[in-house]
This record gives sequence, structure tokens and C-alpha cells, in this order.
Amino acid sequence: MWIFLNDRFVKKEQARISVFDHGFLYGDGVYETLRTYQRRIFLLERHLARLRHSCDLIGLVLPIKDDAWLSIFTEILNRNSLEDASLRLTISRGDGELGIDPGLCASPTVVVMARSFVPYPPRMREEGIRLQLVSVRRNPISAQSPQIKSLSFLNNILAKQEAVQAGAYDALMLNMNSQVAECTTSNIFFVVNQRLHTPSVDCGILEGITREVVIEIARNLGIEVEEGAYTAEELLQAEECFMTNTSLEVMPVSQIGEHVIGQGKSGPMTMRLWKAFQQNLERFLGPRVPVPQASI
Amino acid sequence: MWIFLNDRFVKKEQARISVFDHGFLYGDGVYETLRTYQRRIFLLERHLARLRHSCDLIGLVLPIKDDAWLSIFTEILNRNSLEDASLRLTISRGDGELGIDPGLCASPTVVVMARSFVPYPPRMREEGIRLQLVSVRRNPISAQSPQIKSLSFLNNILAKQEAVQAGAYDALMLNMNSQVAECTTSNIFFVVNQRLHTPSVDCGILEGITREVVIEIARNLGIEVEEGAYTAEELLQAEECFMTNTSLEVMPVSQIGEHVIGQGKSGPMTMRLWKAFQQNLERFLGPRVPVPQASI
Repeated sequence: MWIFLNDRFVKKEQARISVFDHGFLYGDGVYETLRTYQRRIFLLERHLARLRHSCDLIGLVLPIKDDAWLSIFTEILNRNSLEDASLRLTISRGDGELGIDPGLCASPTVVVMARSFVPYPPRMREEGIRLQLVSVRRNPISAQSPQIKSLSFLNNILAKQEAVQAGAYDALMLNMNSQVAECTTSNIFFVVNQRLHTPSVDCGILEGITREVVIEIARNLGIEVEEGAYTAEELLQAEECFMTNTSLEVMPVSQIGEHVIGQGKSGPMTMRLWKAFQQNLERFLGPRVPVPQASI
Repeated sequence: MWIFLNDRFVKKEQARISVFDHGFLYGDGVYETLRTYQRRIFLLERHLARLRHSCDLIGLVLPIKDDAWLSIFTEILNRNSLEDASLRLTISRGDGELGIDPGLCASPTVVVMARSFVPYPPRMREEGIRLQLVSVRRNPISAQSPQIKSLSFLNNILAKQEAVQAGAYDALMLNMNSQVAECTTSNIFFVVNQRLHTPSVDCGILEGITREVVIEIARNLGIEVEEGAYTAEELLQAEECFMTNTSLEVMPVSQIGEHVIGQGKSGPMTMRLWKAFQQNLERFLGPRVPVPQASI
């Protein structure tokens, strides 16, 4: 496995950073996850825009320009012979003396990892998954905005642990006002009276790119979409529920704790939106990244 | 500079970890800072107890027993020829595949760093420092408890950045209920009517060890100490104000933003408590750690 580290490609075993990296010492940095379909990158520009936004929110100057990202992604796919891949970009503040002032770090650390995308079992897409409504609340915007895709991820880890201990696939988190926020790495949608509902950005969520795509697709299909503030009780009474992120795309939720949602399997609107997502995929994908020329 | 990494001592340049360390990828881990005075460790047991508490709160099993810590501290002081030192222990979840479930990591990463303790300028102790009341709120207990000394430190970094940009030494953070919480790496005290006040633990603060010591010393001196919930306005009206942590001990605060506290310099109770801290130090220190035997 080849990994991009700062300015070159190295084997996994050589992909090592200093213990003085402020990503390690203080969770000081940001990340982004991208996906390729048959060597075509899903919404590259939007992912890079969000990465820049995360960097801006923590005052980190991204050391790599958009064009250079594409070259890195191309080479990492080629070196690892990947077609359907998941890419993880990690940008930390870099090495520096002990202390939390970012001014201690001269230049950011950049890591790009790529791995083969493993499709979810078809049964999951039919039966849906179980979430656990956890006691851990989502970080409030005024403390650490969920809009920063940051390396300080403990809030979500604590939520995930609580969910996994309860035998669930993931956690459903409320914000400090007891309104539905999001899952640990995905957004949440639900259907009431054939209307689609999803927490608004000011509930304290990450503005998921797949979330935006699903809202757009739903509206194009003539489905009403409402972004608002909802209680857990409202969600539990829903006819359908699903999660979205770059990997899951549209994944049905059939149970929250012991409570069964709707028919306890993927609902008709969920299936319709997932199919529409597949049908629309073409327009969200960039060109196939070039394969390396055969060596002479 | 020698650093302890997992099971051995290495030079700073060799102190490297995998980019798959979940401390780096997700801020999944905890830390502790200790101090030695003339090779004597300040309240070792209490620091190790707090480290265990942090680990418990994130479900991490500490791979090193108390006796072994002392051997490591002794050797790191000896190898680096340190007398008055600051020790930083970092325990991360360890290497694992991408994903936030801690079950992906087989064993924690342990890092111990030591550096010479540089005393603060006497002028700081006389004139006091300036804090900035920042807009960034302290992480709430229900999202990510400040009692976990965690590697996910972005909340404090954002606060520090805001304070440094305002020309202050550090940030004063409020909790979500607009009550005074703490600074980015220290607790806060203030004096009103000759009574000492400090935010209670349920305001969402780290239970500082120096905080506990100062409360004990104050009570022994016959000073009334109140732990409670306070507004920023109450603090701004105080006669004196100071911060506490293992490095600062008792450090006067003379200004918060543009507002001058009391006489704008270290106040009499602050000086009395700092002197009492010095006089009591002896009973908080362990035995001198042994020097290595001369090689034959």
C-alpha cells in the first residue's frame, strides 16, 4: 500500500510522522474523505471547497493547490491499482514544540491514504441498519463547530462507543437543545407524510455533500424537503429514515434503539432516492483519472 | 533529546509513529503533564490517578502500571540530564485501520517527552497576565467532558487562537450556560470580599491538581473558598484573579480584555497563596529519583 506523505509516495510501513506532530498531540488538523467510482472522483470540487472551508475555520493554510491534489489522487490510485476507492486526506498543523499555539508549527503535514471501496451488503440496503440514540451530545457550534471536519474527533468516538456497546451500527446524536443533529459520520433524513425532513445546518451538523445532493435530487423528483429542528420523538414517529454520506450514499435506518421505524425495512421513498442517486451519479463524477503510460 | 516510545527510549528524530495511529487520525487518546522540582515529582500519584480516570472515560486500557511509570520517568530524566522538568505523557488508541471504532486498534501508543522547565519571568508574577474573554465556549460535559484530558484539543486551540489574536496571554472560556469555566490549560480563581471563588467541577472544567492544592492551602490559611457558578461580570468585578496549573502554579491575572482587575497587578491574596504554595511544596514532592550508577 502506497501513501502520500507531504511531498512523496511511501510504503505504508514508511508512512510515519513525528510524535511532535500537533495532529497527534492535540488533534489540531482537518480531514476529508473522497470516493471514486471506476477511477472517477465524486464531486471533487465540492470536497476540496469543504476542505478549504475546514482549514479556514481553524486558521490553517492548505499547502497544496487544487491542481496538485488531482495529480496526487491520480498517482495514488495508479500506485495502488484502485478503481472504486475511498480516499482519506489528513492535514495536520505539523511538527512543533509542545504548546497549543498554532504558531509553534512551521508547516502542515499532509497525508493521503487510498483503499479499495468495499460495497455494503445488499441485505443492509434492504433491511436497513439500527441506530442508537446516545447520551453523548453533538459538539455545539460555539465550542467546536461540526462544520470543521477536524482531527479532534473524540465527541463522535464517544458516541460511536456508546452505540456499539448497545449493539447498534451507529449513534444518533442530539444537539445541546435536544434536537436531532447527525450520526457520527453521516447526516440523517426522515419521512413524515411523504415529506422529507433533515436537520438544518444551524442545528449543528456537518454540511454533508451527499446530504446536499439528496436534497437536490428529492426536489427534482417533486418531493418536498424541509430543513428544520426536530425532536427525537418526531423522528421516531417517522415513516422512513435514512443516513447519507459519501460512502453510504443513501442507507436505510430501520430501527432506533428498540423502536422500529415504519415497516422495519427500507421504505419506498428511501429506495426511490437511492435509485435516483445511482441514476444521477454520472453528472457528479469527474473524468476517469488517467492510467500511467506503459514503461518502455 | 531522548523520548520514550512504547517500549524503549529513542532519539527525537526516531520518535515517529504510523500515520494510522488513531491519536493522529482522530485525536483518540489522552495525555497528562507532570512536573519535577530538583528531580522530585510533584504529586505523582494524583497525576497517575487522573490519567487512569481519563483512560476510563474513553474506555482505554492503560498498558503501563504505576511502578513502570516511575522507572520510565527516572530514565527519561537521567538520559536528558534534567532536574526541573516538565513531562508530557501521551497515550493514544494506537494503530488501526481507518474507522472510529476503538476496536480497530490492537494496542495503545505510549509517548513520554521531557524537557527542562523554564521558569516564568518574575515580572509576570508581579504584573500578572492578560486574559481574553473569548467567544469560543468550553466543550460541554455531555459532548466531550473537560474532565477527559484528551488529544482532541481543538476546542482549546480555537480559544487560544482567538486570545492570541487579541494580544492576550490566554483565553478565558465560558460554558454553554455563560458561566465562567476555565482557561485553555488552567483553572481560574478570583477574590471577592476576601473570599476565594472558583468554578465548581459541574461548570464543566478539568479538576486541576494544582486547583485542589490551592483550595486546600487556602482553607488551611483560614481563607474561605467557594466553588460555584459565576458569570463573567462577577469575575470582572473581582479584587484579584489568578490561574493555576502544574506549570504556572499560581499566576496572577491583572487584565481581562480591556478591563483591569483590582490594582492591575498581583494582589495580596494571590501573593500569599503563591508563597504558601512554595512553602508547602515539600510535602507534595516525592523522593529524588535516583541518578544512574557510574558505569565501570
